[in-house]
Amino acid sequence: MKSDIPQLLFNAFSMNCVGHINQGLWTHPRDKSTEYNNLDYWVSLVKVLEKGLFDGLFLADVLGVKDVYRQSVDISMREGIQFPINDPLPMISALAAATTNIGFGITLNLTYEQPYLLARRLSTLDHITQGRIGWNIVTGYLDSAARAMGMTEQIEHDARYDRGDEFLELTYKLWEGSWDDDAIEIDRQGRVYARPEKIRRVRHNGRFFNLDAYHLCSPSPQRTPLLFQAGASERGKLFAASHAECVFVSGQSKDSVRLIASSIRDEAKRIGRNPDDVKIIMGVSVIVDDTDVQAKEKYAEYIEYASPEAGLANFAAGTGIDFSKYELDEPILPPKKNNGIQSSVTATTQGKNPKTRRQLLSDFALGGRYTPIIGSPQTVADEMIAWAQETGIDGFNLARTVTPDCFEDVVNLLIPELQNRGVYKTEYKSGTFREKVFGNGDRLPGRHPAAKWR
Amino acid sequence: MKSDIPQLLFNAFSMNCVGHINQGLWTHPRDKSTEYNNLDYWVSLVKVLEKGLFDGLFLADVLGVKDVYRQSVDISMREGIQFPINDPLPMISALAAATTNIGFGITLNLTYEQPYLLARRLSTLDHITQGRIGWNIVTGYLDSAARAMGMTEQIEHDARYDRGDEFLELTYKLWEGSWDDDAIEIDRQGRVYARPEKIRRVRHNGRFFNLDAYHLCSPSPQRTPLLFQAGASERGKLFAASHAECVFVSGQSKDSVRLIASSIRDEAKRIGRNPDDVKIIMGVSVIVDDTDVQAKEKYAEYIEYASPEAGLANFAAGTGIDFSKYELDEPILPPKKNNGIQSSVTATTQGKNPKTRRQLLSDFALGGRYTPIIGSPQTVADEMIAWAQETGIDGFNLARTVTPDCFEDVVNLLIPELQNRGVYKTEYKSGTFREKVFGNGDRLPGRHPAAKWR
Repeated sequence: MKSDIPQLLFNAFSMNCVGHINQGLWTHPRDKSTEYNNLDYWVSLVKVLEKGLFDGLFLADVLGVKDVYRQSVDISMREGIQFPINDPLPMISALAAATTNIGFGITLNLTYEQPYLLARRLSTLDHITQGRIGWNIVTGYLDSAARAMGMTEQIEHDARYDRGDEFLELTYKLWEGSWDDDAIEIDRQGRVYARPEKIRRVRHNGRFFNLDAYHLCSPSPQRTPLLFQAGASERGKLFAASHAECVFVSGQSKDSVRLIASSIRDEAKRIGRNPDDVKIIMGVSVIVDDTDVQAKEKYAEYIEYASPEAGLANFAAGTGIDFSKYELDEPILPPKKNNGIQSSVTATTQGKNPKTRRQLLSDFALGGRYTPIIGSPQTVADEMIAWAQETGIDGFNLARTVTPDCFEDVVNLLIPELQNRGVYKTEYKSGTFREKVFGNGDRLPGRHPAAKWR
Repeated sequence: MKSDIPQLLFNAFSMNCVGHINQGLWTHPRDKSTEYNNLDYWVSLVKVLEKGLFDGLFLADVLGVKDVYRQSVDISMREGIQFPINDPLPMISALAAATTNIGFGITLNLTYEQPYLLARRLSTLDHITQGRIGWNIVTGYLDSAARAMGMTEQIEHDARYDRGDEFLELTYKLWEGSWDDDAIEIDRQGRVYARPEKIRRVRHNGRFFNLDAYHLCSPSPQRTPLLFQAGASERGKLFAASHAECVFVSGQSKDSVRLIASSIRDEAKRIGRNPDDVKIIMGVSVIVDDTDVQAKEKYAEYIEYASPEAGLANFAAGTGIDFSKYELDEPILPPKKNNGIQSSVTATTQGKNPKTRRQLLSDFALGGRYTPIIGSPQTVADEMIAWAQETGIDGFNLARTVTPDCFEDVVNLLIPELQNRGVYKTEYKSGTFREKVFGNGDRLPGRHPAAKWR
């Protein structure tokens, strides 16, 4: 069966810690996520991914600790729920040196980073990886992060995005506006390294930031890194539509994902972008084996090690709801406070038929909230293609289960099947991360809001 | 000749840019510093250094632009004076992956970084390099950096150090105090990744910072990275004596270097540290060749490409003095404002016999302010040993001239001679950066002020 959908984008979705999306699987005898402090663990992972022509290794991140469930961090520490957690950024150059094509999506939180320093860190990485850098823009959602940064509580949800808009405006000015492409001369005879008249000082006096600076780095291959974002609240979707080139979504039903995808594209169009300038990428947990039966057996084996309660504790921090306070069969009617939570996530606990704790624990059988896709290569391919056809998404973020087995299974079993279906590339295109994903040049298109600062 | 001095410490001193200390040498046909955006340039450099058993690659850094000379950035851009300049941190993991033993000294500016985020970045690096990380603590000295960070001017010199003391107290609390060594359990059967009772929340309410957080990383091999510092003002020396394990000095005479070295050690002793807990490392520019004559010819060739005026422009930014305003033979009596400048540097322009611009340009024949040591391996070894014997320094920061030739010359010619003299190691010791430099364990000694937060 040939499909009418274009090539699916594939990112491996991971985090510089033990428990990312699917909690508890570090206890599986073959899981190696406890080696996350060791560069070799990551280097061998990216080599597997590049063998499978993955578009990117996407590294989530979080600041702070998950302390909402039972109002305690104990379960987060005992189960390794995104804690301890290393910074994703410092290891990227080693992973880039071990590979040639795969891109790297790095999460950096603009509520706590500084625009002048962040712009330089990402330009540096874009230089040394020859344009393989993406930035997942997050604004944070944990009060514990605010306290760690010396604040008493977080900036209010919508204000975080207002501030984020201005933060991005600043980085756009530095990345896109401070240097002409031909400013670097390297004329040894004439003793001209760079032409001062081609380097502009950026001055900005805004509501949240002031800046008066030259961008410290010469233009990197992409200038602005490929921009990822995952906002799904109303304000978050506007932010994503205004800035993001790749938007992550998660959802339990095709209907909800189709709705999110189309509303983000509509919003992008409304502000003057091309709807095709935004790729929509959905989080999934894939469990694939030679046959459906074997895949189901593998799933059954994995969930013996998973921790649904740790998944719920992680979800509690994401939603701000302490699920431990509800009886097992009590409908969960969440409190009004919803400080920065993805609406697609809170939707799980809202709507006409609020779920109970028992139902959530059952949803989180694999330790996390991504609906698993389980089966033979044929079954999984069918299902992924159906998701793409019926919702308009462009690709998938594959959350790890038992790692690196889960990625090896995908590379060895699923990808050949997707290639047979004609929905997965058989070789990498040349060029930067942006060029590989969009096929339209290394730089942001002229329609993107950043372009006006050129 | 066997010497009575212990093994000399050697760092390669470089910067993620074109013109570091010795300005203008990028115009030399064999100089490769213009390739600094390329990871391969750095990887091959560290391999040369590791072949020569260098203790560390030490990467300077600066935020802002050098705009004091002629009150303009033009010469800095044209000559590439520490601009453009990439962040040193992101490439370290690639350099660590390409080597086994060499340490990495990374400059991070605590005036503009955030303690919670900086502590995590360095712990992450210390993990993935297996303990090969050093932090060069700087507080900055450019008004242009303050403006880039949204301030109207820098924090006043001594207040920057007061703030720095508190910044370090915070990072010590996170690095040394937040985790017990045995907090990570990894008990798969018992489902215990980490023991909550062995991880402590750090609470700090101070003059400059508040923080309420668990350190995000488990204990790395060194916990606190090896601490470097270069303060040479009175307040800077107190800061160095309070915190630094390796102190960088520069100086034009053995008398001045001996004085600085002994005053830092006295100060360290006064606050309860062991004077031997502080290594003093001096900046030099070494030009070595088979014979004295050939080395002098090489020097003569190099200085044809050097830019003494660019050196002066760099020095102007470091001292806050616009030397262009002085006649060529006018004694330079600096203005009173001296915002954060090393006293060893300003000393050059002060004292009983103030120098003229002509004399400074002559001092900067090689494009920078480090007195060059020029000669055959025997001559250079004699001179280095004499510096160590007569001043009490422990080693050298070798500034690059024409790179990578300068480091290859040192590795191929000078180091064998120093090994013959018995003043340079013939193999790496095992262990972390700190263990290799001090031979006394991976962690800070109990006498260090950080230890009280354990």
